[in-house]
Formats: sequence, structure tokens, C-alpha cells
Amino acid sequence: MMTLCPLAPQVLYAKDTPRDPENSQWVDPFIGTGGDGHTFPGAVTPFGMVQLSPDTANLYRGKDPQPEIYKHSAGYHYDDSTIIGFSHTHFSGTGHSDLGDLLIMPMIGEAHITAGTAEHPETGYRSRFDHDRETASPGYYAVDLLDYGIHAELTATDRASMHRYSFSRGEEAHVMLDLTTSMYNFDNKVIWSDVRILDKQTLLIHRSTNGWANNRPMYFAVRFSRPFTDIDLHNLDNKRYRCNGCLDKKNNRPSTINNPDEPYAAGKAIKILAHFTEPTREPLLIKVGQSAVSYANAMENLDTEIDHWDFDRVRAETKKKWDTQLSVINMKGTDSQKRQVYTALYHALQAPHIYQDVNGEYLGLNGTIQKATDHTNYTLFSLWDTYRALHPLLTYVAPDRVPDMIQSMLLHYQQSYNNMLPIWSFQAHETWTMIGYHAVSVISDAYLKGIRGFDIDLAKQAILDTANHPSYDAIPAYKKYGYVPMDKLAESVSITLEYAYDDWTIARLFEELGDDETAQEFYGRATSYKNLFDPRVKFMRGKDSQGKWNPDFDPEEAKLMGPFTEGSSFQYSFYVPHDIAGLIDLMGGDTPFIERLDTLFTKELDHEKIKEHEDIAGLIGQYAHGNEPSHHIAYLYNYAGQPWRTQARIRQIMDTLSSDKPDGLAGNDDVGQMSAWYIFSSMGFYPVAPGDLSYAIGAPQVPEISLTLQNGKHFGVTASNLSETHKYIASATLNGAPLNRSYITHQDIMAGGQLHFEMSDKPNKAWATQQDQRPPSLSVNR
Amino acid sequence: MMTLCPLAPQVLYAKDTPRDPENSQWVDPFIGTGGDGHTFPGAVTPFGMVQLSPDTANLYRGKDPQPEIYKHSAGYHYDDSTIIGFSHTHFSGTGHSDLGDLLIMPMIGEAHITAGTAEHPETGYRSRFDHDRETASPGYYAVDLLDYGIHAELTATDRASMHRYSFSRGEEAHVMLDLTTSMYNFDNKVIWSDVRILDKQTLLIHRSTNGWANNRPMYFAVRFSRPFTDIDLHNLDNKRYRCNGCLDKKNNRPSTINNPDEPYAAGKAIKILAHFTEPTREPLLIKVGQSAVSYANAMENLDTEIDHWDFDRVRAETKKKWDTQLSVINMKGTDSQKRQVYTALYHALQAPHIYQDVNGEYLGLNGTIQKATDHTNYTLFSLWDTYRALHPLLTYVAPDRVPDMIQSMLLHYQQSYNNMLPIWSFQAHETWTMIGYHAVSVISDAYLKGIRGFDIDLAKQAILDTANHPSYDAIPAYKKYGYVPMDKLAESVSITLEYAYDDWTIARLFEELGDDETAQEFYGRATSYKNLFDPRVKFMRGKDSQGKWNPDFDPEEAKLMGPFTEGSSFQYSFYVPHDIAGLIDLMGGDTPFIERLDTLFTKELDHEKIKEHEDIAGLIGQYAHGNEPSHHIAYLYNYAGQPWRTQARIRQIMDTLSSDKPDGLAGNDDVGQMSAWYIFSSMGFYPVAPGDLSYAIGAPQVPEISLTLQNGKHFGVTASNLSETHKYIASATLNGAPLNRSYITHQDIMAGGQLHFEMSDKPNKAWATQQDQRPPSLSVNR
Repeated sequence: MMTLCPLAPQVLYAKDTPRDPENSQWVDPFIGTGGDGHTFPGAVTPFGMVQLSPDTANLYRGKDPQPEIYKHSAGYHYDDSTIIGFSHTHFSGTGHSDLGDLLIMPMIGEAHITAGTAEHPETGYRSRFDHDRETASPGYYAVDLLDYGIHAELTATDRASMHRYSFSRGEEAHVMLDLTTSMYNFDNKVIWSDVRILDKQTLLIHRSTNGWANNRPMYFAVRFSRPFTDIDLHNLDNKRYRCNGCLDKKNNRPSTINNPDEPYAAGKAIKILAHFTEPTREPLLIKVGQSAVSYANAMENLDTEIDHWDFDRVRAETKKKWDTQLSVINMKGTDSQKRQVYTALYHALQAPHIYQDVNGEYLGLNGTIQKATDHTNYTLFSLWDTYRALHPLLTYVAPDRVPDMIQSMLLHYQQSYNNMLPIWSFQAHETWTMIGYHAVSVISDAYLKGIRGFDIDLAKQAILDTANHPSYDAIPAYKKYGYVPMDKLAESVSITLEYAYDDWTIARLFEELGDDETAQEFYGRATSYKNLFDPRVKFMRGKDSQGKWNPDFDPEEAKLMGPFTEGSSFQYSFYVPHDIAGLIDLMGGDTPFIERLDTLFTKELDHEKIKEHEDIAGLIGQYAHGNEPSHHIAYLYNYAGQPWRTQARIRQIMDTLSSDKPDGLAGNDDVGQMSAWYIFSSMGFYPVAPGDLSYAIGAPQVPEISLTLQNGKHFGVTASNLSETHKYIASATLNGAPLNRSYITHQDIMAGGQLHFEMSDKPNKAWATQQDQRPPSLSVNR
Repeated sequence: MMTLCPLAPQVLYAKDTPRDPENSQWVDPFIGTGGDGHTFPGAVTPFGMVQLSPDTANLYRGKDPQPEIYKHSAGYHYDDSTIIGFSHTHFSGTGHSDLGDLLIMPMIGEAHITAGTAEHPETGYRSRFDHDRETASPGYYAVDLLDYGIHAELTATDRASMHRYSFSRGEEAHVMLDLTTSMYNFDNKVIWSDVRILDKQTLLIHRSTNGWANNRPMYFAVRFSRPFTDIDLHNLDNKRYRCNGCLDKKNNRPSTINNPDEPYAAGKAIKILAHFTEPTREPLLIKVGQSAVSYANAMENLDTEIDHWDFDRVRAETKKKWDTQLSVINMKGTDSQKRQVYTALYHALQAPHIYQDVNGEYLGLNGTIQKATDHTNYTLFSLWDTYRALHPLLTYVAPDRVPDMIQSMLLHYQQSYNNMLPIWSFQAHETWTMIGYHAVSVISDAYLKGIRGFDIDLAKQAILDTANHPSYDAIPAYKKYGYVPMDKLAESVSITLEYAYDDWTIARLFEELGDDETAQEFYGRATSYKNLFDPRVKFMRGKDSQGKWNPDFDPEEAKLMGPFTEGSSFQYSFYVPHDIAGLIDLMGGDTPFIERLDTLFTKELDHEKIKEHEDIAGLIGQYAHGNEPSHHIAYLYNYAGQPWRTQARIRQIMDTLSSDKPDGLAGNDDVGQMSAWYIFSSMGFYPVAPGDLSYAIGAPQVPEISLTLQNGKHFGVTASNLSETHKYIASATLNGAPLNRSYITHQDIMAGGQLHFEMSDKPNKAWATQQDQRPPSLSVNR
């Protein structure tokens, strides 16, 4: 029988194909704004410093985090029906949160100082809204504020943004600039804030907050398109703090202390209310520049990036940026698939954020102002999440930015008083959130892929200093015992397993660099996972410094301060991404390993055992797609020679845990990691162990998809007979030649060409089952 | 009869006279630490950035300022018997206050976290002390901490300091570094603070406070002479804020949020307790560098200025700096007189403070980091006080620093969002304290004296922008009405009178610069004082915008929010320093004027009428020597032709309101203004109207005193037959020629030479009584 040729890639990439195919049309920024996705719908550029987006809650944290606080990590939640205003900084997809700087809200009628309640929005400046009168696309967000008859639109550049408020009624408009609101808000979160009125169209604003990052400053320059008629500076703490500019009567004060005529207010609870006459005459525009360095830089950022008042021009230019950035992937598929893939790509292209002013200055980790001379500085490294798939994806979809992202991490190390690469850092602050030292994985993966343009000597030093740190977590104990003893540190098993993986990436890098001695040392450390595998129970299990196994062991339990991080032994026992073959050996071979995998996906989880973990979400049995420790697990059947089971699981996850609806993400997007999983998995492969340059093949989910590579080549994946039932791979070819292995390599991708799958409704249990056809487990000194 | 020749100046300045006559031996830093002097006894260099001094109170302000708070404006009060520690920044002589950054206190025995009470010092780290076991001299302070048997010594350089603690007993020593204490302390004064342990001998510390200046940062680098054995980072707010480094058990925390092993703490109530073994083995030294810019600059300042551990060397070098700086005045007199004159000079040479790091960086008024390229930047301009006599004095005793002080004020203007010269500013903050725009007086006086080295074009612009400011106080109304209407602004009479004087200095400057048009405009404004002189009551009196005099007028009353600033009409009616002749005319001629002066000095003040003013102190009748509006008044008899009455009043003030005891100052030293009055008055003359380059002669108070001038010349004053009773001038000569006028000029001084007085116990009522022998009142377009 004649082999059917796959669709040639040139069908998708004929010379007359427009360079920018306007893929932004498929992005739906509302995906992930419901459920626990924690994305935001507002205006942003690729990797932009500004995230201008509506906030729908103004919650104060009480003694403990509340579910509503967690739910509003991105400021906006699709369930809500009122908007309190538009703030300029947001995380995309995080579980913990911060930001929400400078909330702006227009209104007519009574000039409110407080937001009011969701139940009674008329008690404050908050307004009702309706999703039918709300729209969002890359770089643009618009909503009708129903209580006020205001059509509010937002757009952004990298470091600046623009609001356009069109009023349908009212004699006078008011614009609230509230410096007290925030994400994960609580009393006294605002350390200090101030506002200075330069003239009737120009304000300078600063605030520093103590949240996830402590003492984090942000400066804003605000320009109104026309002069306000009056402005009130409310200093709600004025019982306690000096109040400039907020006293009505000039002679009602001792002039020996205050000069109330100074248009300035400073304190911990500042609200600014500007008033404008004849709001219906023409839309009111507000331009905002921001900087972490100074008022002057905020102004320079604004005036450099938006030196005009043409809202539509900013919107169009930012859309064009997105179209260009989104053109790295082209695909065919259902509208829903396009919406999901391009929205995932949109979410994957938002962070790390640019963290540098147009003049090159940025705030360094050591608290001093740095000047970038030959790189763009980035911040927001959610590395426990993003080392897995996001950073590997960025080497294809944003390769020009990867060297600078790595250089930014190396400068973080240089500026760090701890001599540490970032763990979970943003805006010049290390939060120490989560575990491991996964920056080493990101650096190693990029270098091994041939990416240069960062200081590799500095990288070597940074990696070794980090991985041998004398006081970070329990590295000395890990080196001494070969594992982190559970009596030394909580989460000891997860930490050991993740160190072992990280160490393997270090070994790979130093081997590539010709330093065999270091490579061997870290290949040795990479086997540490074995020390916590209890052969009697065949699970990863806590062990103390005396060598005694955790007596209080339940593989399904995930408890705070236990031996696992946001997970159970059931999940974490699969966390040996760099040596699945070794893990299979420990578990007794292919059959027990596959049984264990099947049990994971089928045995119902006892929610009582994970009740402290809001992050463990998106469940299939005890597989938790909503959290990162599970992300590689569905691909592991390949390693035991049963790739058809992986193929079925990927489809199961896709069908049950993803959609193009606001609640379409099964858990936190985690700064693009969930989205990166979705993109790789849609293409049909996934980086189980970043740094080994191989990708385990799952199953293609769309009929055609192609990556445009930096070297000018294209790597396409096509699937014939793909359907709801035809989810199995019957056969595969790479550039026309049969492919009988359940993985592809980075080299395969970079060479360009076409990976084609014939799909079937029956599993092909003969394909890629042999040992040498399985994804490789590279040397770990076994 | 042969005229007795005065002592020739060369007697005092023979070539073999040592250049540095060790005048520091006469300085008693305790003068002013009792009563309301508000000076501090600690270690400081001339104009140094560091003021390392003991604090004896840790008072929290309640709802309102308490007397004890006011009393402790300089941290230390001589009445007290316990010390809470040694902090690194202090004002000298202010009435309001701030600073008190980084309190350090050594102890043995129980390691206390809180200071404890003065009544029961054993309840905290506070210790008893005794003035018999306490000593201070320029650049050095030492005290025995009696509760601990610790001999504590302090010394300082410009930007760094050193502590030496000698322990007489104890197994273990503890050193508290308390980031919560402050002057004018109150709840939540600390906006943010943090500490980072670099190694067992090195800390980096920052705190920002909201006090007189809001959001004022200071960075410290701290080095111990030997490693601590342990260190505790106490975060007293840890119920609310993240607590790094303060949890005992490593596994008692979720590692997903904190890394408790990081030797770092940040929050609003941080206390650091370092522990040292074998304290008696050798003294423990602590070096501290400080900077307003960054940790790195604090470290660089420290390591540049004190690159060794030799305490005695620092002390000796700073003493030598003082001896050099104090050698500009040489004198004969009683020990008490020498103590008072040299201590006054010591206090006059402390501010403005250097506010610039060794690398030239400093914090600008606009909140950005500036780099000084060709000047030394200064801060602390208490101008309402110091324009009167301190700045005029500095043109003689520290002339090399005057151009940079003026340049610093001009850069303040450049960095000011208000386009204003400083009013009452310190550490990159304008406090708007007090009234007028007296920077113009300081600039004009210096320029008219021939001082150059600052940007005169910038000065002209700054002066005109300030004096025509559209919103500072009530300048537009002042220009419109010719006075500040009392219905527009409180303190309207004082403000009008001080503007009129300031305007006259502007006229003088622009006349000198050849801009006659501007000069005439401001000569015109300088007559504004006449508009508030009520000819019926013959007092300065509030007037509203309708031209109606204040119906609620009592010339002896000084009330908050009334028409006068820390004073009454009785005092302020003499405030026309630039046109005393015009004032005499208004009052009806010499006789009523002198009667009014005598009444001021003799009519007892009704304390009920000034009870809201703690600043009105040092009373002779209603003359208040303790506050600035009175400082020129005793010299005014000269202008009405009765200089012998001035001579008697000066002696009266000297004898009753000054001594060489801790309570020897009659009121706040006010950053050297009171001291400058004392120095001028001791020499026998005073600048009634800075900018006219004349000095009203009072009466010499010491037998010999001489100024060494920058041009290499000496100007000496000698007094024959001076005694307790011989307080009147019988006759005077200038360089041997009879002097028959009751004033000398700047030119007389700068020419060098000798002013000699023959003193008598009888007034010479014929000397300097004629109109042309009185001090001049220069043109004000009368």
C-alpha cells in the first residue's frame, strides 16, 4: 500500500502567506479568568512591564488567607459582577499573589472615596458590569461601567498604558486614583505612598508595599488629556500622619509645620479624586508611565512610548506586536482548539516581565539602581513552575529573549547578598517561594540547545554557588546524607527529588563544557532520589537523619509541613524526570510501574488527605493537572514501553480538564507553565526532563501545527484521521521516514521538517515499545 | 593725656603661635544639654553627617506632643540618669525634632529586647550613668554604663563612626541594635527597616521613617571588631509581617513561602541582638558607616574613612579637625568665657550637615540619587533661625564652605517640584517649617560680601521664583494687598514683616548685579511692613483683606493660629531690621521708640498669654532671648541714638541668660543661631540686618578676641578696663583712629586690624548718638 504523504509544510508556509497572520484574533484573554486559572483579561504587551486590567475585588486579608483572596490572585474573577477599577500591575496565573498597583476608576454623580461592596456597589465607586458588554483581545480591554454609563477602554505599551473613558451622561466626572488597593491586600500592606500634582494634567505617584515582596516600590507618571477642574488629596491616615494638601482652610493650621498649599500628599492611605466638567463632550484619556526606579523614569517611559493622545494607535501597534509574536505558531483545527492554543501561547508570552526603563535603569536585587548596558532586564521567575515547560518553550517561541532572561538571572545572582540564583523572584525581591534551584535547569537547557549571548563563566559560578549553598534550605545535609533528612527540614522528600533533577542538569552542562570532574560529581548527586525510595513500600518516603523511615506514612496524604511540597508521595514518587529508567527499576520493572501509573489516574483521591492544599486541583484520580508536580506524569508510559496509554491520558486530560471557556484551565496557569504544557501537548510532545533535549511523544491534538524557528526553518506536526475517537498513534514519520520511537529531539525540531502521525481509534501496541525506542534516560552514573 | 595703645594684634598672632592652638580644650559639649538648649553631647566632626550621641529617653508620643518629648529633641537630656543607647544622627538645638537612627547599646547578663523604664532600668537594656563618670570633647564622648560595668566610648568621622566598649565583667556580652527608637518617636514612625547579615562581623541595615521628614531613608554598614557567636533578629511585628530569620525551628514553617535560613529580617519593628563571648578579654569595637543613598555607599563611606581598628587614631584625627576649625577665633578671657565662646563656635560649626557620600552621591530633594561633581552637598537648613546670625558668621569662620552651602540650596531649588529655595529642609525633605523665604537673605548677604563659587544666574532665577511663588503661603495676596491679609493666612503679620525684610535683601542683591528694575520692585516690596503698622495703637497688627484691623488685638498675646509666629506684636513690632529708621518714624521718633524698647525689657509677661508656645523662653520682661524674633532687638537702641542702653542690655542678657553650665542656653540653640548670637555679641557687634554689611556695636564681653580671616588677615577686638561693672563703652578706636559710630562694616572686618574699646562703669551718652553715627538704614524707597 502506498504511504499517504503528510501535508507538506509549505501548504502552511507558502511564500504568499502573510508574515503576520493576525493570530491575535484567536486569543481569548478571558480563558483562565474563571475557575482557579488566575489569569487576568486586561491589556498587556508581550513580556510587558505593564499589566493594566480590571479588578473585581478589594478584599482585606484577615488573620488567615481567605478563599476569596486566593480566588482574586489576578485581581479579576469571571464570577464577579462588579469592577472596582483598573490597576496597572498583575501576575498571570499565580497561586499566591501581590501587585495591583495604582487603581484608577472613573465615575459620575456622587464622588465616592471608598469602593463599596459587591452587593451594594452604589455605596462606593465600584460599578456593576456585564460580560455581554465586555471585550478583550491582546493589548485591549473594554467594558461598560453600567452604574455610570461609562465605556472604559484600556491599552498598553511595554512600560506605559492608556485609559479611554467615554461618558454617556453626567454633569461632572470624577476619577479616583486609589493607592490603598492591592492583590492579597491586608491592613498596613501599603508602607508608604505619595502623590504630587505637577499641573492640572499631570501627577507623579509612588507607593511601596509589603506583600509577597517586601518594600517593593513603583513609580507612576499620570497625564490626563485635559485639565481637571479640581482635585482632592485624601490622606485617610491624617489623624496620625502629616497631611499636606488635604486641609480645606488655609488658615486652619499652624504655618510653622505645614504648607497646605503644596499640592502633595504622603502617607499610608492616600486617595486622589480628580474632577472634570462636561464629561460627555469628548472621551477622557489617561496615560500612565511606570518605573521601579523613579518618578523621572516613569515620566520618561511614558513620554517615550506614548508621545501622543491617539488611543487607537497604541491599541493597533500593540495588536501588531502580538500578531508578530503569535505568528511563531500556525495551526489548523477547530475554532475552540485555535482559541485554546493561541490563548495558551498568549499566556506563555507574558513573563518574565521586562523590568527596565527606557534609559536602561532598573532596580537591582541589592536595592540599588542598576543600568543595563547590553541586555534587557527581566523579572518574575516563577521557576518551580516554569522550568518544566515554559522556559523550554520560550527557546522556540521567543528565542531572542532567552539570553537576556538568563543574563537577568545571573545579574540577580551577582546582586544577591546570598550568592544565589533566583528561586521565585519578582521586582528585585527574592520571595524564597517553593523549593529546588531550578534556575540551573533553565540555564543548562538553553546552553545545551546552543543558546548563547549570556555570560557562561558567570553562569558556572552562579550554578555552583547555588547548588553548594551553605545555608539555603538543607543543601549541606543533602550533600552529607545523600538526601534531606525529614528532621532537618519540611518537604524533605520533594526537595531531595528536585535537587537530584537539578543536579543532573548541572552535570549535563558541565559535561558539555568539558569539566568532567564537576559533571561526575553532579551525576552522582543526581542519583540521590534512590536514597528516599523505600523498597518495601515502593514509594518515595521521608527518612530522618538516623536513617529511619517516616513512621507516619500515607502515600496519599499531602499535608502542610509534611515531607512533600503541595503533593503526596503518590504523585512525587514519579518525580525522577531525568532517570525514569532507574525509577522503573526501583519499582520493579515496566509492569508494576504501569500499574502504579494507572492507579494514580484511577484511584479516587480522599479530599480529607489534601484539604490544606488549594493548589492541588484538576484531578483525574490522584493525578492533579492543576499543579506542577504532575505535569510530566502522563508521558511516563512511554518509558515503560506503552506509549498508547500516554496517548489516551493526554486526550483524557485535554477533553476533561481544558476548554476555551473562562474556567477552561484546570488550575493556576502559573505564569504560563500550564499554557506551555498545553502547547507542547497539543503539538504532540513534551519535555519530561528539560536538559536532555528530548521530548516524549504524547499524541497530537490538532490536525496541523507548525513552529517557525529562529533559524528560518519550520517544524510542523500533522495528524491524519485525528478525531474524537482517533486519539491513538497508528504510525509516524519524520520528514517522510518512518519514526518508530516515542520521542523526538531538539535537533529534530531545529532541523525543520515535518512530523506526521497517522491516527487511529485503536492503540498500536507495537509502536515504540522496545527499549531503544523509548525516550532516553541519560547517564546518571547508574 | 596720652592715649593708651590697644594691645597689638600681633601679640595674639605672633609668628611662633601654633597654628592649631587646641581650642577644642575649651569646648564643653554638655553646655546646652540641660534646660531647653536641645544640644547633644556626642561625637561629631565639623559639619559632619554623623552625630553619634547617647540617648536618654525612649518616649512614645501619644496623641499630642508631650513636654518630655520636646525636652528630648536631641535625644539626651542632662537631667536624666539612664542611657538607652547610642544613636547615629541628631539635630543640635532644634525645637521640633527627628532622627535618632540606629540605636546601639551593649550589655551583659540578661539579654534585653526592650529599653525598660528610667525608673527601673534593670527591666531593659537601659543603664544608669553618672555625670561624674562621663566626659565629652569635640569628636569624643565616653560614659560608664553603671549597670553593666561597661566603659563606652564614641568617636566619629564625617560619614562614619566608631564605638569602643570596654567590659569589666561578664561571661557574655550582648549588643542591641534597635531599629525602633527615634526622636519624637511615635507608633508607626518606622515605615520600614531591614537588616542583612553579611558575615559574623558585618551587617547592613536600612530604615526609613516618617517623622518631621516623611519617608526619610538611612543606610548603615556595621562592622564588629570580632565575630559574634550568635545573633538574633527580632521582628516584633511578625504576627503581621513576614518573618525571616526569626523562627527557631527550621521545619516549623512551610518552605513554600519562607526561607528562614536567610540571615535577613525586614519589617517595622526590628531589633538585632548580637552575642559575644569573653567580653573582658579585649574591648569590642564597632564601626558604622552611613549613607542616605545605599548600603553600598554606607560601606564605602565606612571603609574609606575608617580603614582600620584604631579608635584613638580616629579620635585624635577628629580632635585635630576641630582644633583647626576652632582656630579661626582666638581670645583671652576667663575660663568660663572661653568655654562659652568656643562651645558656641563648636555648636555653630555643626550644621548645615554634609549630605553626600565619598563617591559624590546624595539623595536629591526629588527623591532621585544625585551625583555632586564640583561641590560638597549640605543639608539641614533651619533658615528661619540661622539666616539671622549663623550664616553671616559662617562667612567668617567657615568661608570655604559657604559657596557649597549656597550651591546646595540652589540644587534644592532645581530639584524642587515647587521651584522653591529651601524653607526648613533636611535630608532631601522640605518640612515647610516656619515662615518667610530666608534663603534669599543668606544668598544675598554672601554675594554682597564678595563670596563667589556658586551659580549666581541660577541664584537669581531661584530667588525670583521663590519670592513670586504662585502658591507658597500667601505671596500673591502679599503682592496684591501689600501685606498678607489675616483672613487669608495665619501668622499674617509675622509673614508680612519677614517677607519685607527678605525682599529688601533681594533688592540689595539685584542692585549689586545692576538690575535696577528688579531692585526697585523689591525695595518697594520691602516697605510692606508699613501696611501693618496701626498708627493708632502704634503696633504691628493683623489686617484683613477688607483693610479692617484685627478687632481682637492684644499686643502681648502669642497664640497659635494668630497673626504672629511664636511671638507677640510686642516683639514683632520691632521686626523691620532693614529699616529701623523707618520704624522709628512710625513709632513717633527716638523717644517713643526707646520707651517702647525699655517697656519690652521691663514689663513682665503674662504667661497665660503665651502658654501655647514652649519656644518663647529666656525672658527679660517680654524680650525672649530663647527665640529668634527677639535676637536683634537689644541692638536697636543704637538706631535711636542711645547705644549705651544697648550696651547695658547685652550685658544683662549675657549675665542672666548665659552660662557655661549644661543649662547655660536660654532656649533652643536652633542649629547654631543662638551660639552665633553669642559669638557676635561677645566680640561686641551683631548683624541686625544681614545684607547691609554693617554690624551694630553692642559691647565687648571679653578682653581680647580675634578672627582669622580667609584672606590671611586678622580682625581683633580688645577691651580695656572691661569688668563686671565696666560694661559701657567710653570710647573706641579702629586701627588706632577714633571710632565714633555705633557700627562697623564688613569691609572694616575684612581689612583686618584692631577694634579697641575703652570700657567704663558709666555710660558715655555722647558717643555715637548723632544721626550719621548710628547704624545705617539703607534705601527702601522711603
